[in-house]
Amino acid sequence: MMQRVKINQLLGSKTAMDSVVVKGWVRTKRNAKDFSFMEVNDGSCLKNIQIIAGADLANYPEVERITTGSAISVTGPLVASPGKGQSWEVQAREVEIISLSPEDYPLQKKRHTDEFLRTIAHLRPRTNKFGAIFRIRSEVIQAIHMFYRDRGFYCLSAPVITGSDCEGAGDMFRVTSLDPAEVARQGRMNFNEDFFGTQANLTVSGQLSAEMFALSLGDVYTFGPTFRAENSNTSRHVAEFWMLEPEMAFCDLDGNMDHGEELVKALTRHVMEHCAEDLSLFTKFVDKSLGGMLDTLVEQPYERVTYDEGVEILQKSGRKFEFPVDNGMDLQSEHERFLAEEYFKKPLFLTNYPKDIKPFYMRQNDDGRTVAAVDLLVPRIGELIGGSQREERLDHLERRMDEMGLSKADYWWYLDSRRFGTVSHSGFGMGFERFLMLITGITNIRDVVPFPRTPGAINF
Amino acid sequence: MMQRVKINQLLGSKTAMDSVVVKGWVRTKRNAKDFSFMEVNDGSCLKNIQIIAGADLANYPEVERITTGSAISVTGPLVASPGKGQSWEVQAREVEIISLSPEDYPLQKKRHTDEFLRTIAHLRPRTNKFGAIFRIRSEVIQAIHMFYRDRGFYCLSAPVITGSDCEGAGDMFRVTSLDPAEVARQGRMNFNEDFFGTQANLTVSGQLSAEMFALSLGDVYTFGPTFRAENSNTSRHVAEFWMLEPEMAFCDLDGNMDHGEELVKALTRHVMEHCAEDLSLFTKFVDKSLGGMLDTLVEQPYERVTYDEGVEILQKSGRKFEFPVDNGMDLQSEHERFLAEEYFKKPLFLTNYPKDIKPFYMRQNDDGRTVAAVDLLVPRIGELIGGSQREERLDHLERRMDEMGLSKADYWWYLDSRRFGTVSHSGFGMGFERFLMLITGITNIRDVVPFPRTPGAINF
Repeated sequence: MMQRVKINQLLGSKTAMDSVVVKGWVRTKRNAKDFSFMEVNDGSCLKNIQIIAGADLANYPEVERITTGSAISVTGPLVASPGKGQSWEVQAREVEIISLSPEDYPLQKKRHTDEFLRTIAHLRPRTNKFGAIFRIRSEVIQAIHMFYRDRGFYCLSAPVITGSDCEGAGDMFRVTSLDPAEVARQGRMNFNEDFFGTQANLTVSGQLSAEMFALSLGDVYTFGPTFRAENSNTSRHVAEFWMLEPEMAFCDLDGNMDHGEELVKALTRHVMEHCAEDLSLFTKFVDKSLGGMLDTLVEQPYERVTYDEGVEILQKSGRKFEFPVDNGMDLQSEHERFLAEEYFKKPLFLTNYPKDIKPFYMRQNDDGRTVAAVDLLVPRIGELIGGSQREERLDHLERRMDEMGLSKADYWWYLDSRRFGTVSHSGFGMGFERFLMLITGITNIRDVVPFPRTPGAINF
Repeated sequence: MMQRVKINQLLGSKTAMDSVVVKGWVRTKRNAKDFSFMEVNDGSCLKNIQIIAGADLANYPEVERITTGSAISVTGPLVASPGKGQSWEVQAREVEIISLSPEDYPLQKKRHTDEFLRTIAHLRPRTNKFGAIFRIRSEVIQAIHMFYRDRGFYCLSAPVITGSDCEGAGDMFRVTSLDPAEVARQGRMNFNEDFFGTQANLTVSGQLSAEMFALSLGDVYTFGPTFRAENSNTSRHVAEFWMLEPEMAFCDLDGNMDHGEELVKALTRHVMEHCAEDLSLFTKFVDKSLGGMLDTLVEQPYERVTYDEGVEILQKSGRKFEFPVDNGMDLQSEHERFLAEEYFKKPLFLTNYPKDIKPFYMRQNDDGRTVAAVDLLVPRIGELIGGSQREERLDHLERRMDEMGLSKADYWWYLDSRRFGTVSHSGFGMGFERFLMLITGITNIRDVVPFPRTPGAINF
């Protein structure tokens, strides 16, 4: 039995071939007088391959009835195509119909809105746009691992179920092995009966785990799902998303920024090099300015300014913001975007935020007011990366935990790392889906996640 | 400021160097008459680098007081070492003490049991054994992604929070944004008030998602955390583990086995080539027979036998099993291990299990009794891989769901994939941690997971 060849390989062929087997799904079909022309896609690339099936085929009457979305297997020679926009086509010697799609196949040849396609998220990767998104998503996952392997970082799987609350934001999902309906019926919740014997949550960050490993293995990263139970229906939030979190021993805030800039540039360059065809769809149909943005991302040095400077720029901008800017406040998306999109017109690192709006683990600056935090703000998205140099001094850390009312007993192991061989270390979290939005121009995060989870939505 | 060099790079150097900076943690220290000898490790490799600090150093009195576990920075020339077992050492021109570890640092130079080290899981990657385990774990993650990228598979992030129950085993964790204590107090559970508006669970498998993508993009895989709320305290079970799940369109059971065999061989070979030093620790101290096992894994063809044949072998073996063998039963670990370890003395694929002990989605064989399931059984571990050819025929699938009492309405989207362009497809799940146990000889799964989750244990 001949092995099938994937369409991206056929289209990239240097020579004609006597006989190939193609398997895939029919995207469009046109019946001419003595021929059927079919565009077939197998998901391996954006382009389809054209199949010419002649009336001399034994099962031609069946071939004529092939519908959009049907699965077929075609055997025949790969020959130079006389048609425009394609170099190769397959002249079918044999067409096997694997399955016929009924007429109500939802993906007919016409433009579907993103909103409609979200209702059939199980089928949308069969469209040009979502096929391209998910191939790019896959390639960025690959690029992330390659980037870190090249630099001697070790990959760590941080636990998803956790008893800690790294960010202290309080919007965590709870995990239980008990049936809540049964708990309600009994009118009592006894955590001793629950799987872990105590309250358990879905993680909001792998950072604390990564810190323990950075202080053992040097440079590490964790890349996995993280969760927020925020009941917010925005185009930039989902309840479940992937986060990349590098953590580096013997690294200060400058080293952290150097690393973040190198990472974003390397990943962007990788996508430009390896996903050129899929990317062209987004520059053509999604965001005409995308090409210029990608050039800026890889070519320009990223700006580095302090929070105080950023606030001053915003206040002097003369711009009317929905939320007025005040030194001491957490910046809103509109402020972040103004700085990146309009003022600097490129990514910028904003450093040294007021300690009162940041978590307990960030290194306290000598001014007693700010911490060695850093966010990377980028056009269209706002915050892409959030990180810090970590507080490595045990006494400072304990005092801050007391101030914030955190239980030191709960974090005994974390404090241990400052007791035994503590060193300066730094790291950050990059929202993986936000990066995908940045490089594709996609404006709704639901469209870069295979099966997004949002309030009220857990389909598929 | 000079950049530090990692110890694996120094030890691999071809030449002496005038001046290097090493940063790391002191593993052992010995004070001689005019010198201090320190073994320093930075996590980049198993081996330490030796530091010679002479009494002429300005801060020598401090250097003499350096304790095990302390963090230091050393500057000086890299010179050929006269000592045995090391080619290079650093003659300190400067020793900066980054932090001194107190005398109660738990990892003193002596043998610690795995059980003890589990109680300090945040520190155990600083030991030789666990450093090696987690470097190998990282390299296998890398190898998995490289393997699939080379073969044109796309990586898919399957959702962790799900409304489906892929395996139907009923041991799922529940996810809620409500406070169970509050639910108990109110004495009612209203799912409408919960985040997703319905019951939500942690996934037991990404397979159903992967199937949707295989039927769009061709060959895909998902690699992420999966969960079981089984209250079982064995050395082979944790509540949270990583699973690798490839799913291939246009692929039958034979193709599935070919792929599984190629995968296990490639990953094993990769570890033997890229982790030779770390691996040597396990062949020396954990399992003397490990080397021979690894050779078998990469060199021997894997056996392929049916479930019926396997049962017959077990019944004729004359072996007394704790659970007597009966055709129709799910095999126990003791049976799986007997077949792999003692009978075939190598991995074997067991195929065509009785349908009654397998989930709804497996392709029904013509005999009406079995399904196109396949498990890969390996020595010491038992089941490493579990998979199947999927039931692609809508009518067969619906009938089976009815028989098993599954709601077809809940799986409308899954059934859609058999309605529109259905094709044969196959895939499997490989327990990532079980693979790590296989290649390291580690016998307790808790020791290959950074921070394991088991009944009653959610520390760190």
